[in-house]
Amino acid sequence: MKNLWPMPLLCLVLLLFAGSAAAQAELFKPKISAADAAIAKQLRQQALAGEHSGYKLVSSLTTEVGARPGGSPADAKAVQWAVAKFRMMGFDKVWIEPVSFPYWRRGAESARLISPGNQHIAVTSLGGAPGTPAEGITAQLVHFPTFADLEKADPARVRGKIAFISNRMQRTRDGSGYGQAVIARSQGPNIAAQKGAVALVIRSIGTDNDRLPHTGAIRQPEDGMLVPAAAVSNPDADQLVRLIERGMHPQLELKLDVGFDGEATSHNVFAEVTGKQSSDFLLMGAHLDSWDMGTGAVDDGAGVGIVMAAAELILKQPQRPNRGIRVGLFAHEEQGLYGGREYLANQQALMPSGLLQHLLVVESDLGAGSIYKIDGRTSQLGWAMIHSIHRHLAPLGIELGENDKPGGSDIFPLIQAGAANIALRQDATEYFDLHHTDNDTLDKIDPEALNQNVAAYAVLGWLAANHTISFGTGELEPLPSN
Amino acid sequence: MKNLWPMPLLCLVLLLFAGSAAAQAELFKPKISAADAAIAKQLRQQALAGEHSGYKLVSSLTTEVGARPGGSPADAKAVQWAVAKFRMMGFDKVWIEPVSFPYWRRGAESARLISPGNQHIAVTSLGGAPGTPAEGITAQLVHFPTFADLEKADPARVRGKIAFISNRMQRTRDGSGYGQAVIARSQGPNIAAQKGAVALVIRSIGTDNDRLPHTGAIRQPEDGMLVPAAAVSNPDADQLVRLIERGMHPQLELKLDVGFDGEATSHNVFAEVTGKQSSDFLLMGAHLDSWDMGTGAVDDGAGVGIVMAAAELILKQPQRPNRGIRVGLFAHEEQGLYGGREYLANQQALMPSGLLQHLLVVESDLGAGSIYKIDGRTSQLGWAMIHSIHRHLAPLGIELGENDKPGGSDIFPLIQAGAANIALRQDATEYFDLHHTDNDTLDKIDPEALNQNVAAYAVLGWLAANHTISFGTGELEPLPSN
Repeated sequence: MKNLWPMPLLCLVLLLFAGSAAAQAELFKPKISAADAAIAKQLRQQALAGEHSGYKLVSSLTTEVGARPGGSPADAKAVQWAVAKFRMMGFDKVWIEPVSFPYWRRGAESARLISPGNQHIAVTSLGGAPGTPAEGITAQLVHFPTFADLEKADPARVRGKIAFISNRMQRTRDGSGYGQAVIARSQGPNIAAQKGAVALVIRSIGTDNDRLPHTGAIRQPEDGMLVPAAAVSNPDADQLVRLIERGMHPQLELKLDVGFDGEATSHNVFAEVTGKQSSDFLLMGAHLDSWDMGTGAVDDGAGVGIVMAAAELILKQPQRPNRGIRVGLFAHEEQGLYGGREYLANQQALMPSGLLQHLLVVESDLGAGSIYKIDGRTSQLGWAMIHSIHRHLAPLGIELGENDKPGGSDIFPLIQAGAANIALRQDATEYFDLHHTDNDTLDKIDPEALNQNVAAYAVLGWLAANHTISFGTGELEPLPSN
Repeated sequence: MKNLWPMPLLCLVLLLFAGSAAAQAELFKPKISAADAAIAKQLRQQALAGEHSGYKLVSSLTTEVGARPGGSPADAKAVQWAVAKFRMMGFDKVWIEPVSFPYWRRGAESARLISPGNQHIAVTSLGGAPGTPAEGITAQLVHFPTFADLEKADPARVRGKIAFISNRMQRTRDGSGYGQAVIARSQGPNIAAQKGAVALVIRSIGTDNDRLPHTGAIRQPEDGMLVPAAAVSNPDADQLVRLIERGMHPQLELKLDVGFDGEATSHNVFAEVTGKQSSDFLLMGAHLDSWDMGTGAVDDGAGVGIVMAAAELILKQPQRPNRGIRVGLFAHEEQGLYGGREYLANQQALMPSGLLQHLLVVESDLGAGSIYKIDGRTSQLGWAMIHSIHRHLAPLGIELGENDKPGGSDIFPLIQAGAANIALRQDATEYFDLHHTDNDTLDKIDPEALNQNVAAYAVLGWLAANHTISFGTGELEPLPSN
């Protein structure tokens, strides 16, 4: 039962929605009651004042568990941690669901420039890439300023060499520089293999100038062709480019003791605030796993803390909202959204599809920077409701963005399947300084910005869940998979 | 022949100098000729416009040689590099002098928190410390907020444990936070050994929040008592403190394959602009060696580039100055001023002492931040001359500081022996983010600030060398050694 509106009113609404989206939003804005507005204000104030567990949760997870790569003992400890915290908070329901995946392990890694000179190069294998032989791979670099340059290279130039892609990710508030640069990481190891390279080295997909390389997953290609592949830090990439520009033909020795090693099982962890009128719920997601580097503070300890704390603020209200809040902490996001994909499959296997119970899906997975905009992918009616909700987010400095701009990582399979989505866009200006590096630690989180995030999720969560309107799950076309 | 002034004039000057230092400086300011003022202006403008080799030299040294720890093959390559550059520049005289020292090597290093959980800790051995057995040292941490707390600790609390000192270096413009914090590194390994600790771990002596530990030399104690000793990065120190504050008794496994390994020989490298009237000279120093981490860009590639470029600007003048300019690139500064001490011994062994030829000694060894103040240790007459020279440094934003505030690293043995000294104080606000870490790379150098440094050294060098006044070498009392 997706739509709780009485039929005649719904028909009237649909009639009114014959014009343009903007005009429709103007014509009809679902009303938020004075009582709900008061609760939204209170949640906002509590969150901004830090009267919640958000920062403490991130501190606890990153300090007591630390790095928690999917399938590792620390990952299993993180699952126990989450279950214990949810139970202690008193959620109405807490449960876990298994997620299995191929386990990729990282052992010792090193790189040295053996000519000219003998210089240490800061390097880390890309996730899901094969390792080198124990004695390493030593070869000359062949330089490609961009991924596109490698793609169109004559294989004769590449054969037997280490392909090196040096383009630098641009710093932007919305993090869009990442999407532009990351193809070198995701598809480079396959293209380099096709061209006959013995390995691939890329400039880290990151915006910092620290000697800390950025790892991240590669795409496993259909043809199975891959070479050992690693990222060097930005200063190391600069150094290699300078040597190449001086005509010095750098030779690199690369030793990467990494690779797939059997299957592992982790768990998605869920907790719910039960809706008082409906079994529908708003899903607030984050991912519990992290890379093995850093302690997974901004990626995604922050998201874990934000959605747990926001849901807890709603849980502590004297009354349950009309619809529920489900918090989903997903497993093994980093190497391919395993938890998110498993969750969708489980929901689709339900009869009727559990997907239809998903009122709205939202996720926090871009650090702890302040939220500056609300985008989404909802029905027209849902977006009209977002207009109404936005008035209660505006005091947080959040502007109204656009419909048909979905966002989220673990929830992306749900969005593709047609779940209504809201994306609370975070300021990601500094996020990619830290992303997937050893530098992703608690000290990088600004508690005030985290508070603002908790406020936004709590306000959105309450106002969406305590209404009766549909945001469009079951009405939206599935997105084409890419 | 130290003083080129005619005797009667000198007597007059000495009589005038009977009052306070400030009054004396007011009463008598040695005159700078219009011709010298014009040359100073031209040097300043050339340097600020980047019309010199300073940045190119740092780039060349850090890119083509990279890290160059004293006694390593790269250090030998750096000596060749410096000789070749000086010759190419056309200095009047270029030579090297051998410097021998015990060679300390760094192999693999690692640390893991084995309880609670299993977390990677970013660590590096302190220079000159002994290593651990191959299987490592595993013990509980015992926490001391400051070095003083360790000093006064009951040995019963420390015995069999890893002592952990957690106080944090303060960020200041003049770098004075370093002097306050560094005792934990220099004397901690000895005190920890005396108390029965099995190892020492300190918070890095640095102001950053990067997962890049800061190495640095320890003091070799007379009693020879030392334990393996390492620095953890600031975020790691925060993590250990949080665990301890939660009552979690962290256990650390420390593996440090380091230690002394025979004797090594490196070289001080010198080049001179010969004085046209006198064999006296102003010595501009920097050190050629670096730590094995980073590429030694701010420490002390910048200093090397600054003094080489400044001296070259003077070399390119149509005329030689009255007194000479000697550029000294010293060997193995990082582990105990070996090059500087050897140089003093060599100068003192000359008959008459070569020390007396040192008109003034200056050194650039605090990165590439802008110079904001001129201090020194000169005679009253010398300081009066500095007042005059300062007018030509003021356009660079440099204020006049104080006499009897000497500065310099490799030249410190010369200063202690009574050489007149000028200290061009650099803004060190960000220097200790990078100092002795993997992050000390070329990208951290601001070419404009480097230009300002070259300008200051060139102006000071010309005006001091082309005068006839003495700055006090041979008159100043030796400083007590500490």
